[in-house]
Amino acid sequence: MSNKITSLSARDIRFPTSDNLDGSDAINKDPDYSAAYIVVETEQGNTGYALIFTIGRGTDICCMAVESMRHLVIGTDLDDITANIGDFYNKLRSDSQLRWLGPEKGVIHMAAGGIMNAVWDLWARSADKPVWRLLAEMTAEQFVDCLDFRYVSDALTRDEALAIVARNQATKEQRIRELEQKGYPAYTTSAGWLGYSDEKMRSLCREAVDSGFEHIKIKVGESIADDVRRCKIARETIGPDVKLMIDANQVWEVDEAIDWMQQLIPFDPWFIEEPTSPDDVVGHKKIRDNIGKVKVATGEHCQNRVLFKQFITSDAIDIVQIDACRMGGLNEVLTVCMLAAKFGKLVFPHAGGVGLCEYVQHLSMIDYVQISADIGDRVIEYAVHLHEHFIDPCEMRDGAYRVPRQPGFSVKMHEDSLKRFEYPNGAEWRERINKKIA
Amino acid sequence: MSNKITSLSARDIRFPTSDNLDGSDAINKDPDYSAAYIVVETEQGNTGYALIFTIGRGTDICCMAVESMRHLVIGTDLDDITANIGDFYNKLRSDSQLRWLGPEKGVIHMAAGGIMNAVWDLWARSADKPVWRLLAEMTAEQFVDCLDFRYVSDALTRDEALAIVARNQATKEQRIRELEQKGYPAYTTSAGWLGYSDEKMRSLCREAVDSGFEHIKIKVGESIADDVRRCKIARETIGPDVKLMIDANQVWEVDEAIDWMQQLIPFDPWFIEEPTSPDDVVGHKKIRDNIGKVKVATGEHCQNRVLFKQFITSDAIDIVQIDACRMGGLNEVLTVCMLAAKFGKLVFPHAGGVGLCEYVQHLSMIDYVQISADIGDRVIEYAVHLHEHFIDPCEMRDGAYRVPRQPGFSVKMHEDSLKRFEYPNGAEWRERINKKIA
Repeated sequence: MSNKITSLSARDIRFPTSDNLDGSDAINKDPDYSAAYIVVETEQGNTGYALIFTIGRGTDICCMAVESMRHLVIGTDLDDITANIGDFYNKLRSDSQLRWLGPEKGVIHMAAGGIMNAVWDLWARSADKPVWRLLAEMTAEQFVDCLDFRYVSDALTRDEALAIVARNQATKEQRIRELEQKGYPAYTTSAGWLGYSDEKMRSLCREAVDSGFEHIKIKVGESIADDVRRCKIARETIGPDVKLMIDANQVWEVDEAIDWMQQLIPFDPWFIEEPTSPDDVVGHKKIRDNIGKVKVATGEHCQNRVLFKQFITSDAIDIVQIDACRMGGLNEVLTVCMLAAKFGKLVFPHAGGVGLCEYVQHLSMIDYVQISADIGDRVIEYAVHLHEHFIDPCEMRDGAYRVPRQPGFSVKMHEDSLKRFEYPNGAEWRERINKKIA
Repeated sequence: MSNKITSLSARDIRFPTSDNLDGSDAINKDPDYSAAYIVVETEQGNTGYALIFTIGRGTDICCMAVESMRHLVIGTDLDDITANIGDFYNKLRSDSQLRWLGPEKGVIHMAAGGIMNAVWDLWARSADKPVWRLLAEMTAEQFVDCLDFRYVSDALTRDEALAIVARNQATKEQRIRELEQKGYPAYTTSAGWLGYSDEKMRSLCREAVDSGFEHIKIKVGESIADDVRRCKIARETIGPDVKLMIDANQVWEVDEAIDWMQQLIPFDPWFIEEPTSPDDVVGHKKIRDNIGKVKVATGEHCQNRVLFKQFITSDAIDIVQIDACRMGGLNEVLTVCMLAAKFGKLVFPHAGGVGLCEYVQHLSMIDYVQISADIGDRVIEYAVHLHEHFIDPCEMRDGAYRVPRQPGFSVKMHEDSLKRFEYPNGAEWRERINKKIA
């Protein structure tokens, strides 16, 4: 039997997180952390799993978009994919009729990314390795073949990328061992959601510091008085040495961000995340130039490498917060990591939600081994929710992600969870929907 | 009976245009011009029609995205919408769960835009006026209330917009009369699709000039030898005074665009359209700075006002080619027109496909009456295909669009066309699908 992909499916899985205001912020007021859950299977019975993180309504649209790419996937041999994964990626994002709906942004791009990640999971499972390890062991040539230089060659050429990766080969085993021993440092966002009371936030901040986190993030942006009070509580609780990060979730106009930040600077925030529209390179640059030494971060809503290229080369941001599900999958994410490395920017992958922590641990580890070769101030976001649904959940110890050891990309879910939270027919939703109707 | 919206539907309509290579270019090789066709209806029986232009596969995804917004539309009273259309627009694009899938880009944004345009059509039909006329007759205050200043207030304030529109009020009747007499000038893209032979292109160029067009556009970007030959034929055929525009449909890298253009400059192109990724403000700026006096145009793939704000304020482009279906509908389009006016850029709406010509005639006429108050070098794109499917098709005379006179936004289709071309069950498609299976 061949190793051709014979099946591609996507299921709508939603968790009713809006019940508890976990994950509430100035823009996302009632998220139900959700996923379009993707499975690919080959004729031989090899399987690959991925998810596209969403926050409730619209997960069905993502599922449909994934299935609209069936003709680009079914019949493709895994051996051909592993021989040239760049070609497969290019096919997936270049279907001219589907491309019109992006291009390379929004639902259609998330779907392409989800399929790419499922194929990476399939590859890694077939090779019996975690995804980070599969990539970490590649030669420089093999690794650079996974990148996507389309529309970014004015900022990064293949030769430049190759030189960066080649330079790292001599020392990479040492970094792999270091990751295996210490893990990759994390920061937590679970402390300061907008829906939480001051007391809850204070105790969560204290807990986070006690657990070994050296970076804490809280949400801001709804009212300046609240923000001043909450930043004061956070700073008092964590002390002067733990880094305080603040996140406005795109709530401000450009000039408003500059004004608002003047009142939060006294609490020594290390960075301000998503001060305004994620599309606004010029706006972020203006904000960065007008808020002193506070760094600027964005990325969880940034659609592709072309946008990141501009943020990075224009010095509009300091911290690159790539999302594992919004872009065209691992290939595009690694391209952005490479751009960041060339231009001296730090990559802090966006996480939280459901499955993102599982994904991004791989991304940062690959980045460390093959690209940046530096941890320094870098940390991966971490949130405590929903890990129980994964067969190989991420593991946090002393404020660091432990290396994933099971094969794949770590986002395969328990069948029980899938059944229970499938929308709208899983038990959890049927009950809620019946109650609403009653 | 109230004027509440009681029904919202979307149908998948596709025309098999790839049969003849009408519309083929360097990126869009086999478009089947298509539309998610939207109908809204109120309890009183008032109806509104809109379409989201697509090029084949994925039209069903757009339909689903439209229907995912049902909870934001059904039950809303048309009278409340007309009292504050900005509020309705804001509700539509701010559903926090659906917003995650954009934000304000891709399928979900196109769906919001489609619904907005259907509501504008509904309003105009209820008022018994063409959309352009409904907007042209608004006071300055009413008009500015339709704009969307979110994330663009650093470049354009409400007061600035109001001043621009207020200044135009004294002379607007004169412009309305002028439009009624002469129409709005057009240019044609029907002459130079990549799939056409040299002979077909030559005769279409001649025909276009004979019909009164003073601007001709041809496609470039597949091979430099072909482009040199085709530009030479076009320039010889149209003579030195007719403007020759060229369109690369995003095929080049940034530096490649600069090199390629050096060889086409001898044929005196007036502008180069879509030289590279539509997301790349910084890249377009670099191209514009390095191709002499050739202007740079882009926009048909640009997702929203935030991206256009940057293109316009950074002087990265000269010509703003807004698309009537890609953005959040008329409100967002008019905001971009206002930004263009403030910063002295020309708006040339993108058209062709199916229904775009019908839409954009309204946009340019509103722009002329209320915003730019200038035609000068401005022209609207025009292509000859598929107008027969509309009840009130655009009318071209002496190279100009005549003013629409029937109520609405001009995109209501014949029921026969809808039935015949509905995908996959319309007669036209069933036949094709059966042939393929056989």
